[in-house]
Amino acid sequence: MDKLNPNRIRQVFLALNFAICSSLFPADLFAQTREETIQRIYKEALTSSPAYENLRYLCKKIGNRISGSPQAAAAVEYTYRLMKQYGFDTVYLQPVMVSHWVRESKSIVRITNSPSKGNILLNSLAIGHSVGTGVNGITAQVIEVNGMEALKTMDKKLLKDKIVFFNKVFDPVFVNTDNGYDGVYEQRSGGASATAPHGALAVIVRSLAIDHSDYPHTGTLVYDTGVKKIPAVAISTNAADLLSAELKKEPHLKIYLEFRAQRFPDVLSYNVIGEIKGKKYPNEIIAVGGHLDSWDVGEGAHDDGGGCMQGIEVLRLFKTLGIVPDRTLRAVMWMDEESTNAGATEYAKQAKQKNEKHIAALESDIGAFTPKGFSFDTDKKRVWQVIDGWKKYFESYEVFLFNKGFSGSDVEPLKSDSTVVIGFKPDNQRYFSLHHTETDVFEAVNKRELELGAAAMATLVYLIALDGFR
Amino acid sequence: MDKLNPNRIRQVFLALNFAICSSLFPADLFAQTREETIQRIYKEALTSSPAYENLRYLCKKIGNRISGSPQAAAAVEYTYRLMKQYGFDTVYLQPVMVSHWVRESKSIVRITNSPSKGNILLNSLAIGHSVGTGVNGITAQVIEVNGMEALKTMDKKLLKDKIVFFNKVFDPVFVNTDNGYDGVYEQRSGGASATAPHGALAVIVRSLAIDHSDYPHTGTLVYDTGVKKIPAVAISTNAADLLSAELKKEPHLKIYLEFRAQRFPDVLSYNVIGEIKGKKYPNEIIAVGGHLDSWDVGEGAHDDGGGCMQGIEVLRLFKTLGIVPDRTLRAVMWMDEESTNAGATEYAKQAKQKNEKHIAALESDIGAFTPKGFSFDTDKKRVWQVIDGWKKYFESYEVFLFNKGFSGSDVEPLKSDSTVVIGFKPDNQRYFSLHHTETDVFEAVNKRELELGAAAMATLVYLIALDGFR
Repeated sequence: MDKLNPNRIRQVFLALNFAICSSLFPADLFAQTREETIQRIYKEALTSSPAYENLRYLCKKIGNRISGSPQAAAAVEYTYRLMKQYGFDTVYLQPVMVSHWVRESKSIVRITNSPSKGNILLNSLAIGHSVGTGVNGITAQVIEVNGMEALKTMDKKLLKDKIVFFNKVFDPVFVNTDNGYDGVYEQRSGGASATAPHGALAVIVRSLAIDHSDYPHTGTLVYDTGVKKIPAVAISTNAADLLSAELKKEPHLKIYLEFRAQRFPDVLSYNVIGEIKGKKYPNEIIAVGGHLDSWDVGEGAHDDGGGCMQGIEVLRLFKTLGIVPDRTLRAVMWMDEESTNAGATEYAKQAKQKNEKHIAALESDIGAFTPKGFSFDTDKKRVWQVIDGWKKYFESYEVFLFNKGFSGSDVEPLKSDSTVVIGFKPDNQRYFSLHHTETDVFEAVNKRELELGAAAMATLVYLIALDGFR
Repeated sequence: MDKLNPNRIRQVFLALNFAICSSLFPADLFAQTREETIQRIYKEALTSSPAYENLRYLCKKIGNRISGSPQAAAAVEYTYRLMKQYGFDTVYLQPVMVSHWVRESKSIVRITNSPSKGNILLNSLAIGHSVGTGVNGITAQVIEVNGMEALKTMDKKLLKDKIVFFNKVFDPVFVNTDNGYDGVYEQRSGGASATAPHGALAVIVRSLAIDHSDYPHTGTLVYDTGVKKIPAVAISTNAADLLSAELKKEPHLKIYLEFRAQRFPDVLSYNVIGEIKGKKYPNEIIAVGGHLDSWDVGEGAHDDGGGCMQGIEVLRLFKTLGIVPDRTLRAVMWMDEESTNAGATEYAKQAKQKNEKHIAALESDIGAFTPKGFSFDTDKKRVWQVIDGWKKYFESYEVFLFNKGFSGSDVEPLKSDSTVVIGFKPDNQRYFSLHHTETDVFEAVNKRELELGAAAMATLVYLIALDGFR
């Protein structure tokens, strides 16, 4: 047999030590390198995560869950129970009054005098928070406007008694598709209030979609105070191309528009919050999550069921792997992001009132696709130095993007000198084909992509919990 | 009016110059920065590329195109005409004898004595180049083996007169899913020849798929010389889990296996080649493309219709944008990659015989998904220095991955001291769910992801054409 040389004894001791550690004690009681801990995070996320099955339940058993709906209440109950089940230190509901708009009928958008075909029905979906047309609908001549910039310079008299057709095209030239969305966003959100004062009767908006398809995409509009509320409806990009072509043939084209929709008084709902207490700095909070409400079409899978499940998964990874964070972690499911941001506003208000110290807040709300990285909404030099020091931990997981930019609607209200707000940045080539439309369903989410996102988010949260931004 | 100061005059001249350039002359006659040219490449690819519609034609009008099939011949004809139509300097066919295997029936894999259910049919697909079972099929007891490593250490006597069930699971832990594939590859390619000498009657292989599904995945096997050829069939991952569970209940489980398949003598086919001559160094060649053959299920959309269309698109971008390359560009569609690599072998042989100087060869053959970067199969310091200098051009297009690694089966034979072989690296989370199975269809390809891949490839080719690797 071998001589019992010191090296061999040391090896035996280490092996024994490892066996004891792994079987009896949470791993973090014993020194692990950051690299080792991150490796465990990724391994657990890619081999044993319940996030995908949880998302299936949210999408298939609860379904879409517009703010104020029974389904939104079910989603509150479901995520509350999930976090209880995972044994987070505290799980609670934060009451908030949220908006309650109801689509009461399908919409009809019909060209009535096409020179070639007479009637042409266009695929449509009322824009969220729009008023309805009344039972008799609206018939009027259509005028096409190339987005809000074109509106500014045109002769507003032309809008009187017309249905205004906003048809600015989503620019496909940007690799980051958010930039294309920003370029068309305003025609949906502000088109109605910008044209109503000039006598427009209704607006039809080209869907804010990056692809050519027959699916209309909804989303919210905002009625300016004191301005007449006129109905607004989105049509699919294919329908918009058709309508534009028909208008070229017949400039006096008329449309019949009809749908019912109503905004009811605000109702009580909740942000859902789960917490793991920090060991060293329990008063320093890192919030991570997404919004629990969705639009009332599809299943809100990428927007934002995925973000919610990733938020919960981040904390579950800490819990399951026995990683005790130095700072307090909070998974937050904000309510009513899609319409009024009521949940996020209330969350930030409460945080201020209670003098809570959020050092960071991270949201996943542009799809549960393969992670590219994160955008940090900060100019602070010191923060960027810290981030630069972290990049090396992400390289072998192919996460490379760390840039300055918008974070997310739900964390933006927390932004301050002492709170860094962060957006999770997945690859978003497919996002604006399914955003706010009926194709945003569970099947569009890839299990691994969802899990990789959760792992990347957990890794960032782990590093923030260790180092802060100091 | 303004004074005619020199600066203003210069501005007017520049504006005029730009107007003339853009209207009358190909843009590259006038100095453009590299950044500007790359911007034009991306803009053209994302707004005006025909690659996606070309892929639709290949997938929907021609369909899957196994080497030696009429559809493979149609694909040769189609891509030849496409490149002619785009006006490349030379377009030609390179004759090559390719393999010709035919799946002559559906396969039946049936458990015959399940304790609970009696007969259980398992979703299956014969492995490419397998011999058939004969009309009477094979009924035998099954033995489960956990991959080729487990085979090495087991008692081989247990294999006699058995159907060997290779059930090593695709490891999901790697972010780069290629690594998981490498870990299970051998049980499909070598399982039959490794067990036949020990008296095994047939092999059943767990599909090399990363997900749990009912789709069986095919692929090729290689029969070792002098070893008895026994039939091999893949079953879906769900079926494999079921079979394994049944075996735990009843170790004497029997299976009935039946399918017809035949390898015919090699037939004449072609690599399809299109060329744009280099201006400064016409004898230095950069090859780019993918393989034109596919498996005989699905539509070969990601594997590798996308890679072919991207190869053609790279040259079309140069042509359309008037970028005259310093070195010669070649789009190559290799034939019979899936089975014998005959096209690539012939291409490399011819290149050597003709003393052609390939300085680089780039293949796209792991899916037409969002580009992450490239892997270069080289250790040369100088090459890596050059590549490091190029990274900055890719950053704003979110292409960050430049690592050492395998390139692609079709370019690997070109590897030499003077030829750098390169693999396009897209995000591959979804790839091994659709690889070699019926879900690899046109609808699984996203237009923008395909285009971004072509743009990234064109950018790399553009830089190689300018700088070489000197």
